[in-house]
Amino acid sequence: MDNEKEIVMTSRIRLARNLKNYKFPMKMTCEEAVRIINDTNEALNNDSSSLNYRLLYMKDLSDINKNVLIEKHLISPALAESKDRGALLLSIDENNSIMINEEDHIRIQTLGTGMCLNECWEKSTKIDDVLEEKLDFAFDRELGYITSCPTNIGTGMRASVMLHLPALSITNQIDKLLYSISQLGVAVRGVYGEGTKSMGHLYQISNQGTLGASEDKLIEKISQIVVQIIQKEKATRDLLIKNNKDEISDEIYRALGLLSYARSMSTDEAMKLISYVKLGREIGIVEGLKNKNLYDLMIKVQPNNLIANSKGELTVKERDMKRAEFIRNKLQD
Amino acid sequence: MDNEKEIVMTSRIRLARNLKNYKFPMKMTCEEAVRIINDTNEALNNDSSSLNYRLLYMKDLSDINKNVLIEKHLISPALAESKDRGALLLSIDENNSIMINEEDHIRIQTLGTGMCLNECWEKSTKIDDVLEEKLDFAFDRELGYITSCPTNIGTGMRASVMLHLPALSITNQIDKLLYSISQLGVAVRGVYGEGTKSMGHLYQISNQGTLGASEDKLIEKISQIVVQIIQKEKATRDLLIKNNKDEISDEIYRALGLLSYARSMSTDEAMKLISYVKLGREIGIVEGLKNKNLYDLMIKVQPNNLIANSKGELTVKERDMKRAEFIRNKLQD
Repeated sequence: MDNEKEIVMTSRIRLARNLKNYKFPMKMTCEEAVRIINDTNEALNNDSSSLNYRLLYMKDLSDINKNVLIEKHLISPALAESKDRGALLLSIDENNSIMINEEDHIRIQTLGTGMCLNECWEKSTKIDDVLEEKLDFAFDRELGYITSCPTNIGTGMRASVMLHLPALSITNQIDKLLYSISQLGVAVRGVYGEGTKSMGHLYQISNQGTLGASEDKLIEKISQIVVQIIQKEKATRDLLIKNNKDEISDEIYRALGLLSYARSMSTDEAMKLISYVKLGREIGIVEGLKNKNLYDLMIKVQPNNLIANSKGELTVKERDMKRAEFIRNKLQD
Repeated sequence: MDNEKEIVMTSRIRLARNLKNYKFPMKMTCEEAVRIINDTNEALNNDSSSLNYRLLYMKDLSDINKNVLIEKHLISPALAESKDRGALLLSIDENNSIMINEEDHIRIQTLGTGMCLNECWEKSTKIDDVLEEKLDFAFDRELGYITSCPTNIGTGMRASVMLHLPALSITNQIDKLLYSISQLGVAVRGVYGEGTKSMGHLYQISNQGTLGASEDKLIEKISQIVVQIIQKEKATRDLLIKNNKDEISDEIYRALGLLSYARSMSTDEAMKLISYVKLGREIGIVEGLKNKNLYDLMIKVQPNNLIANSKGELTVKERDMKRAEFIRNKLQD
């Protein structure tokens, strides 16, 4: 359904796996870490049925490049900090990745656009199978997959979706909703913000528990909650159009005006304004931006993504100017 | 000089005159008021060398139409309130007008674009001469022209100029400057605002005293002060470009973005944003609006000007939406 595409930005499955006969990453030696990286790389890249994966060592990447990967949700800040042992296997389309020697030895991640947890689950299982053929995973008949942190024991799976919820945010219903969701054993995080602070009205929800339920059940639970949130966001959008069309139109067009004209803009402001314009397009107020990927624009205006596309160092002021210019060009394209 | 045109919006001369053998307007009878209106109208419109003047009785005008005249500075609020006795003689180009039975029996006003106090003075003197041929003005050899309020006795002249001072305003130098000017016996008023509150960074300065100096001297004094203010505004613009070009460019383009896209806008915000864009054009930041009369736009976004151009009554919300639409259309023309 169309609403779903507008509201669910991405789906993501992460599987935590560890190797028998190795200490957990925080305790192991550098030699062991290197061996795990090599073994994982070999297992994956020598499998004929797999995609090609680039192997990126954290120690070889600049801070900016690591931050770009963080902003794209391809690695965690913890992996970026694991300078001498961390590595990433990354498929060319960047939809599949394996973090090596983060909290667990192996974390398989699969990413897809829109609501596609099942597809992501199938893809990640396939990667899991390929790796398991060559590697000896720590698995307990009773507990399931053994993980460094007890909260991940069991399936080792985290299913998460990134939701764009501007109407619920603008109408101040979001906090209450997120609280009630969190009561259902579901974690909610703002995206690109600290703690639960959200930027661009983006929220990520994922399962809290990994134990005592099958992967299918966990995915089904998240999916059901997502359907409810979509309905609520959609209903709120309808109400906005019905009761506050003039006010919201003004807000949305002002956002478009600032994005189209400003000469300097912070990440936070850019995210918020793009979010308004995205909403405006989806509720039929803004026309003519149909071919723009505004969610992609939200990612590209992140500080390190911007810097990575520039020559040389940028001060904060230069970055804000660059961001404004980048947005103007993207909207005019 | 070009700077002058950008900074001095209009010049205006007002002459206060009263008729012998009549009480001042606040004391006279309605019959006397009507006689003065008729005599003045006849004196002016029967003179072959004069322009054609429309005679507008305050009692015949709607509140909106009276407020439009106030917003155009063609009548005072006091005249608008003088329902049964007040009238206006107005030339077709609206540059010359005679208020009848305001505080004084007759107030001749001449208006011109840019710095042109001398031309206005010549025009108003000509009107004064035409009227004096037929009407018997109250004049005292020692005191000069007799007026209702002692502050206007003498020449009965007020020379005023409307200045656009965005750079001095933005950099918070304006209050100090206006205070020091007021010490020179010059009155300073914000325009379209209450008291000294300014809208759109517009300020009107005029002579305080009308006694003890010739009209030429009073005009010369105002002109000298205006030249100094222009120099200060110009120097501040140069400094803005030199030291804060990026910041001011952002402010100016944001203003243009909001004016080009907003769906609702208050008078106050519109005035401020148009002022920024006008500054931007004049300091070479905004291009492509060369043919727009932005000062005229400032007047046309005033509430009653807007309403007068609409069909039917407008709520405040509708007016703000109408204003935003009007501005968008004007900028796109």
